[in-house]
Amino acid sequence: MSIIHKYEARASSINSLICIGLDSDYDRLPVQFHDEEHPQFAFNKWIIEQTHSYASAYKPNMAFYESRGTQGMQELKLTMDYIQANHPEIFTICDAKRGDIGSSNNGYVTSVFDWYGFDAITLHPYLGREALMPFLGREDKGCIILCRTSNPGSSEFQDRRTKKGKRMWQVVAENVAEEWNENGNCMLVAGATYPEDLEIIRKTVGEMTLLVPGVGAQGGDVNKVTRVGLNNEGLGLIISASRSIIFAESPSQAAQELRDAVNNY
Amino acid sequence: MSIIHKYEARASSINSLICIGLDSDYDRLPVQFHDEEHPQFAFNKWIIEQTHSYASAYKPNMAFYESRGTQGMQELKLTMDYIQANHPEIFTICDAKRGDIGSSNNGYVTSVFDWYGFDAITLHPYLGREALMPFLGREDKGCIILCRTSNPGSSEFQDRRTKKGKRMWQVVAENVAEEWNENGNCMLVAGATYPEDLEIIRKTVGEMTLLVPGVGAQGGDVNKVTRVGLNNEGLGLIISASRSIIFAESPSQAAQELRDAVNNY
Repeated sequence: MSIIHKYEARASSINSLICIGLDSDYDRLPVQFHDEEHPQFAFNKWIIEQTHSYASAYKPNMAFYESRGTQGMQELKLTMDYIQANHPEIFTICDAKRGDIGSSNNGYVTSVFDWYGFDAITLHPYLGREALMPFLGREDKGCIILCRTSNPGSSEFQDRRTKKGKRMWQVVAENVAEEWNENGNCMLVAGATYPEDLEIIRKTVGEMTLLVPGVGAQGGDVNKVTRVGLNNEGLGLIISASRSIIFAESPSQAAQELRDAVNNY
Repeated sequence: MSIIHKYEARASSINSLICIGLDSDYDRLPVQFHDEEHPQFAFNKWIIEQTHSYASAYKPNMAFYESRGTQGMQELKLTMDYIQANHPEIFTICDAKRGDIGSSNNGYVTSVFDWYGFDAITLHPYLGREALMPFLGREDKGCIILCRTSNPGSSEFQDRRTKKGKRMWQVVAENVAEEWNENGNCMLVAGATYPEDLEIIRKTVGEMTLLVPGVGAQGGDVNKVTRVGLNNEGLGLIISASRSIIFAESPSQAAQELRDAVNNY
């Protein structure tokens, strides 16, 4: 059974399509955490305890841990161990945006899936399916391919039209849906900031699950995303917010509000 | 003065365009290193001492260190400290293939440029210039953008033709040369396995330095690469080999032979 069912089971059981991004930038942590031995881990533990009832997934972005060298990596590992010990039913996504040639990708597979123990990873499509086979071949894990990213400048290459009139992100969506997904473990990133494109992606990929960043601090519209993004089972979306939840005055309330905004649609 | 001059000064001073990839996969290390406290570092130190006379650059690929968790990261840091202490004139490239949205890229900038102390990093173009500004804005560091990668499946997206008949890698080369390089710190990755494309890239980007992986284990032809890739100053190439040097019976001899093969052209 595909690892994506782990997410779906959790989402159905708590009635929430929300993913919380653990983008725990050390410089933005409330000052009381700076005195802890493991400040990022202590903060994450506090966030998880406040938000786990609303969270179907947690998604730490590697950049905020790597910035502190081995100490940050250790605190991310502690965070993963904590989630696995206390909330093993919650889906975990490593927002690493990796993508190398095949022989190097083996190293990332070992790191992200086996050493940290993540359920899924975000990946760049630029090197093609052949290079990403070490990830795609792991039937027990999820591969979330960048398709239409949420950032303001994402059109530079992603919106280039091919000879046949398709934009690059459409080509990525088609190839992943038609050729990459033989293990049923592929998903796509489709930013909330481009809801018209998200709608086309949904039509292109059938029931495939989409990771949707860009609500919250980046300004994506939850109603639009939910309206055009759900699949026929009322699932198929992982709606992710990071800064707007973890740095809110009440992370618990912010997570609940986002869940309700999605469910109210 | 651009950091690229550090590479050019080294290449001119030792008459070598060779970069050695420290892809020090733990499982492939000679067994005697497995007993060391820091096996990857001990191996790297041994490689560096044998090859530094021929090396204008060293390029560790992050995947092979991340696969061992914090221990691997620590050994990469020890390797970087060792190079900086003993061979500070050698250019260092972090082959990390990163590329996130801007606010996350700040974390990678801190990690790769400031914590490890690398001179340059490899980057995915897919999110566009706007997202990569935290890297591009660092005038003191180098940004090496993936353009035409060396892997067998790189054509899947990179060779897509746009409406105007250009392939995606050409669009990347043009944009980087014309719009991304205002700090003079950009380079491109152009695989040795596609020498005809490398020739077009050279014509597109003028004197820009190209990182050329794919000679050695991946089978790229050194003569062809050198013939079509050099810029008007007889520089502009960083010719990189990894496994074929570091796992050779004599890494020293393998590095010397590659340098000579380039220089004999």
